[in-house]
Amino acid sequence: MDLKDEASIAMLPAESRAPMPHLAIDIGGSLIKLVYYSRDGDWLPEDNKIWSSKESLGVSNGEGNHPLSEGRLHFAKFETSKINDCIEFIRSKQLHVGGQHHEVPSKNKIIIKATGGGAFKFTDLFKEKLGIVLDKEDEMDCLVAGVNFLLKAVQREAFFYMDGQKQFVQIDHKDLYPYLLVNIGSGVSMIKVDGDGKFERVSGTSVGGGTFWGLGRLLTKCQSFDELLELSHVGNNRVIDMLVGDIYGGTDYAKIGLSSTNIASSFGKAISVDKELEDYQPEDISRSLLRMISNNIGQIAYLNALRYGLKRIFFGGFFIRGHAYTMDTISVAVHYWSKGEAQAMFLRHEGFLGALGAFASYERHGFDDLTAHQLAQLCPRRESCSEGTLHSAPHCDVIKEKKTL
Amino acid sequence: MDLKDEASIAMLPAESRAPMPHLAIDIGGSLIKLVYYSRDGDWLPEDNKIWSSKESLGVSNGEGNHPLSEGRLHFAKFETSKINDCIEFIRSKQLHVGGQHHEVPSKNKIIIKATGGGAFKFTDLFKEKLGIVLDKEDEMDCLVAGVNFLLKAVQREAFFYMDGQKQFVQIDHKDLYPYLLVNIGSGVSMIKVDGDGKFERVSGTSVGGGTFWGLGRLLTKCQSFDELLELSHVGNNRVIDMLVGDIYGGTDYAKIGLSSTNIASSFGKAISVDKELEDYQPEDISRSLLRMISNNIGQIAYLNALRYGLKRIFFGGFFIRGHAYTMDTISVAVHYWSKGEAQAMFLRHEGFLGALGAFASYERHGFDDLTAHQLAQLCPRRESCSEGTLHSAPHCDVIKEKKTL
Repeated sequence: MDLKDEASIAMLPAESRAPMPHLAIDIGGSLIKLVYYSRDGDWLPEDNKIWSSKESLGVSNGEGNHPLSEGRLHFAKFETSKINDCIEFIRSKQLHVGGQHHEVPSKNKIIIKATGGGAFKFTDLFKEKLGIVLDKEDEMDCLVAGVNFLLKAVQREAFFYMDGQKQFVQIDHKDLYPYLLVNIGSGVSMIKVDGDGKFERVSGTSVGGGTFWGLGRLLTKCQSFDELLELSHVGNNRVIDMLVGDIYGGTDYAKIGLSSTNIASSFGKAISVDKELEDYQPEDISRSLLRMISNNIGQIAYLNALRYGLKRIFFGGFFIRGHAYTMDTISVAVHYWSKGEAQAMFLRHEGFLGALGAFASYERHGFDDLTAHQLAQLCPRRESCSEGTLHSAPHCDVIKEKKTL
Repeated sequence: MDLKDEASIAMLPAESRAPMPHLAIDIGGSLIKLVYYSRDGDWLPEDNKIWSSKESLGVSNGEGNHPLSEGRLHFAKFETSKINDCIEFIRSKQLHVGGQHHEVPSKNKIIIKATGGGAFKFTDLFKEKLGIVLDKEDEMDCLVAGVNFLLKAVQREAFFYMDGQKQFVQIDHKDLYPYLLVNIGSGVSMIKVDGDGKFERVSGTSVGGGTFWGLGRLLTKCQSFDELLELSHVGNNRVIDMLVGDIYGGTDYAKIGLSSTNIASSFGKAISVDKELEDYQPEDISRSLLRMISNNIGQIAYLNALRYGLKRIFFGGFFIRGHAYTMDTISVAVHYWSKGEAQAMFLRHEGFLGALGAFASYERHGFDDLTAHQLAQLCPRRESCSEGTLHSAPHCDVIKEKKTL
């Protein structure tokens, strides 16, 4: 199994807490995200073939590897267009029946928490193929619940990204709200969060991850989102973007604070009649696309944070994938447009916010409080957070992350 | 000569006013814009060949055709990549020497007002080829001066665009400021204007006209910006954009105010592995691109207008070209994001703002006041504005527009 394909968070002993639900699912426009629970040793992978087919879609949500003995939250994803692979994966692991390899009596409906637009679109398919009922949870509710859960319960979840380095911050529960959540999926939602379950979707943009991969597919021969993303590492956007210096003959436009290397027009050099699509390198196209989209999201996010007086902006969603250049561009955009007054923050489990929120909704009105509070009481003396601590009330390291085999 | 290639504003008799300068030039990243003055009968076109080579780049800045007898301001444009055509045009019409077909003694330097980044980049070229010195005027200064001039001196200059109709508005000079000017060239500048010469570039985006044409060239076989723009008329962006309904199985996401037809992800359907670039129609690609870019500009403009408490937003720049779908998308975007509280306004001479400002700078600190005031006094009883008048102090119709042969 490709290490990148699955990640997990080890949980404290199941006996010490409320019974765990087993599976929640977030079906977006491009990707399906699963969160499921297992005790250690349960459900070893049975279907490498399915995993292998997904290996191009990497999950890179942190480097931690701290196994605890009793159970884990696992994370997995599939392309929405290959939903049948996802259904086969669920069936092969019997996730929909709690990992028990026996049939559930037909009179007992199996109900699985699901969110994202696909929870509506694919209701019939899940019923038909797996005999399960998708219990639909609102997408924004789940996103917010997922982020609040992570920020409260997971140490080293949030970080700044600067000069190629992550700087983790621990956020005081009492000083968490309000914040702006920018979830970059196929499209982008911007949500002002004022508390648990208290939020408003204040803005968004259609220029998101689907735009990067959609335009990228049309412009390059890349076969996967991750291939396109990787290419951007070695690309040079200046080949395609029109810089201020290109217009000004190499000089700055200093009077209004534009340096010669600022991008004046994304893809503006491609207006040249001397070059056709095949004359451009895919890595340069990828880098230009990534920079255009990340910068645009950072700019709109900052303007909305400013509008509502929000000092923290968290960026999440599967578009980011822990990708250095993406985070760097977003960070620079927020810094640039705010003239250094705001900073972008990122989340290690960025891609599974909605799925985690759906998982949490099994015990809505109690799950995340339960988790954070119960576990905080169980391990009050664990080491406190020392890296990049912003506030003076670190809580214990209740949940650790581990990549599974 | 293609009617679309040149436009003019007829001027009152030159004898009644200060001596007119003859040529000003705005050299942007993609286009060069010329504004020049002639008395009627001067400088009939001598070089149709050059004009013909430009016929694909249309100027559509109004339908008026009100010739006056004494003189005209002419407007022309060239692609920056074909700057030698522009230089040949200037030479053939002797614009740089005031239309006089004789050589200027070499000791007398000919100075031409120029703005845009190319005024810096091509200084040596103009000196070498035409023996003229480009007197550089700041780009933002010129944009603002051009808009202020037009709004003060030209009747039926500003309009709303709604339901396929232009609704002209006449703006009281005393109630003109502040406003947000959004100039969409290769890139986009957003300028808060507080008075004559009082302004600040507060924002911008690199996703502008150069992005539309650059990406459009790479994605289609279109040979010109205007061909690409025309195609968008008959395109269907739903083939390529991922709509809310595509994610939600045809239903709205009503809870947060998203209808099934809202675009969730621009180009989001192009992630499908079933289709390659050649399987998409260029008209659909054009429409999706145009909508993505126009909507994005409208959104960022509105957020900036809100930030600075500006009730008026004027959109100009050569990207718009009086194109119905572009104006419609920008208008809808501003309406949507402002929840109906703001409205986009457009300018008939949108493409020549900087060039007009450079022209006006020959008599900076007096030109536009001179023009407006002198001419207002000359024709105090001309019919006042009746269509869409917002304020009660219409001024006379001092300058009329006419397309030249």
